[in-house]
Amino acid sequence: MSKSLLAKRATQLLGSVIDSSTSLLQKQSHDIVRFAMGSPAAEAIPDFEPLAAKVLGAEAFDYAATEGDPGLRDALLEMLDGTSDRTVPERLTITAGGMQGLDIFGKLFIDPGDLVIVESPTYTNGSATALSYGAELAEVGVDADGMIIDELIEVVDRAGRAPKAIYVIPSFQNPSGTTLSLERRQRLIELARRWGSMIIDDDPYGLLRFGGDDIGSLRSLSDGDPLVFAVRTFSKIIAPGLRVGWVDTAPQHQQLIINAKQAMDTCTNLPGQRLVAAFLAEGGLDQHLRTQRERYRERRTAMQTALADQFGSRATWTDPDGGFFLWVTIPGVDTQRLFAAALAEGVAYIPGPAFSPTGRYPDALRLCFASTPPDRIVEGVARLRRALDA
Amino acid sequence: MSKSLLAKRATQLLGSVIDSSTSLLQKQSHDIVRFAMGSPAAEAIPDFEPLAAKVLGAEAFDYAATEGDPGLRDALLEMLDGTSDRTVPERLTITAGGMQGLDIFGKLFIDPGDLVIVESPTYTNGSATALSYGAELAEVGVDADGMIIDELIEVVDRAGRAPKAIYVIPSFQNPSGTTLSLERRQRLIELARRWGSMIIDDDPYGLLRFGGDDIGSLRSLSDGDPLVFAVRTFSKIIAPGLRVGWVDTAPQHQQLIINAKQAMDTCTNLPGQRLVAAFLAEGGLDQHLRTQRERYRERRTAMQTALADQFGSRATWTDPDGGFFLWVTIPGVDTQRLFAAALAEGVAYIPGPAFSPTGRYPDALRLCFASTPPDRIVEGVARLRRALDA
Repeated sequence: MSKSLLAKRATQLLGSVIDSSTSLLQKQSHDIVRFAMGSPAAEAIPDFEPLAAKVLGAEAFDYAATEGDPGLRDALLEMLDGTSDRTVPERLTITAGGMQGLDIFGKLFIDPGDLVIVESPTYTNGSATALSYGAELAEVGVDADGMIIDELIEVVDRAGRAPKAIYVIPSFQNPSGTTLSLERRQRLIELARRWGSMIIDDDPYGLLRFGGDDIGSLRSLSDGDPLVFAVRTFSKIIAPGLRVGWVDTAPQHQQLIINAKQAMDTCTNLPGQRLVAAFLAEGGLDQHLRTQRERYRERRTAMQTALADQFGSRATWTDPDGGFFLWVTIPGVDTQRLFAAALAEGVAYIPGPAFSPTGRYPDALRLCFASTPPDRIVEGVARLRRALDA
Repeated sequence: MSKSLLAKRATQLLGSVIDSSTSLLQKQSHDIVRFAMGSPAAEAIPDFEPLAAKVLGAEAFDYAATEGDPGLRDALLEMLDGTSDRTVPERLTITAGGMQGLDIFGKLFIDPGDLVIVESPTYTNGSATALSYGAELAEVGVDADGMIIDELIEVVDRAGRAPKAIYVIPSFQNPSGTTLSLERRQRLIELARRWGSMIIDDDPYGLLRFGGDDIGSLRSLSDGDPLVFAVRTFSKIIAPGLRVGWVDTAPQHQQLIINAKQAMDTCTNLPGQRLVAAFLAEGGLDQHLRTQRERYRERRTAMQTALADQFGSRATWTDPDGGFFLWVTIPGVDTQRLFAAALAEGVAYIPGPAFSPTGRYPDALRLCFASTPPDRIVEGVARLRRALDA
């Protein structure tokens, strides 16, 4: 079997886990509490209509520069100034969301057979894109402090070769909600340098911290090391449907990235770039983020409380300081089998095995608390309990 | 050197030809007649502001279904009804423009070392994406009837193996403007079937015919053969900045395509999909296309007349019945060297070697007549003549 066919099968395998959930979901016409998708709250989407009236003239519908529209690039540089993601133009390329940042990484840096380390559990599409370029994946567990670095060393020792890349979601990880500690970030960077491995620093949720203290990004802690390929997006902080994100990489990679992107989608959609730039230019982002953080903190707590009320000691769940997700483990329960019953009761989630390329976590599931108001969260968790009882 | 590094270098090589043009171009502050990019006329972009006010509510900014927003899928099926691209839902996947259709093809079907046939000259980004998946390209010339099928047979004989894919732009080809004749379309399909080769049927300009008679699409002439992978886009008929297109493929490929796309960019931007759907729903497309065809016919003729006036027998050019481009050959002139002088005179184009993976056509160039009004076309061609004299 050819490498690419292997990759295709792997993609299909992973895809089918999700697709079975979403296509089932789309066929449901009754009221469903949607804990499945990682969407921001509908209430958190800015009102784009006045912005659209201002910026969507005919010139907003031509091809954009492949590296990104100059107005958005400028607004983004200003937005990042003062954060640990502060950067410079020659490191910045606008992408079609964070997902395209991952795809560009795979296209440029993953050769068939390369070892790529992923967190376990991890973001399904991140694994899928690495597999689609022929990577061999190895999973390293996460605990309350993120990827377990001692286990990383063991896994690499066992593999007998250096990983080409280590894929991490350092803040409020998808799906576990846990955050890589400062000490582990530093050890990870040291190991990557020793091994000559690249770090895919995928951080969509970093600006959505609602508890605990900020930790410098891998990009800043590595002081702009070319080994760190930072993937960012407006999907979680502004709106996912825009498909606007960016990568922050060493300047020597920028032209390669621009050329690769040109042969992937020519450029990122310009109306979306103009809307984001206009939103940033109005200066409302800080207040917007403050509102969202408060909203998400409240929803996280509501979900944890509801889980305690409904499941008590029958289940365990994580305690994220930001982001969108709780990771719930219900020992002895097959969450893929539970899914149909949950849908029948009117609640959706993503079963645990979708987050592991080898199908681990049969008794776990991911719940997105971000997109559902607290009273609906209480109702959704009650439905989940009824599904379990059924 | 690894296959992917080879591919990267090829991508970079091709990219650099274009980038040297566009980055030079971006640094020019003076008045320039822009014959370089393949953009529609600014006057041909619909007025999206009233549509935006209607359809860009908060729900237009969430993730879209990976296969495309249902409203757009329905509107597109209706739009295609009665054309030779008429299709059914299980063959249709919405993409981020036509370029992503090509990228998806490469990702799913091209293994490193595969032989991929391209027209010569051909669309640069199409070659680049095939190279980025490790394809070995072979060029087959085009004449006034499109790809020369006898030469295709010779090239394949010489290669001693069947091509994995044959990449054609059958209508008003980019960059030559020529159209693959009905007889050659039929022979091409026969050969592909004999060899088991796929045909990448990339037809962005098919609806922009302003002369001659319609020819059935490869997709329709092959009667939906799984070997034909049809790539389409709204870029040239509505607006390129939207980044909305589609692929029409055998049903057995659809789930693979959806899964691959999910790990490439999750989904196509939803505001763009909603704007296209709203434009189609208003029923103005037929009139819009009639207006554009008339406009482009007039501009093609204006450019041919201006070339005859300025260059007489010193140059030759093609005679397209649709689309955006003229292919001009000026024997004895190095069009890459001419480029700087042309910019200094205030006119931009794309030099011929950008359209050949082996850098053929040093004495040719591509002119886009679509985006420039007739009086400016006359001025631009005069400037080109002055650059040549300088």
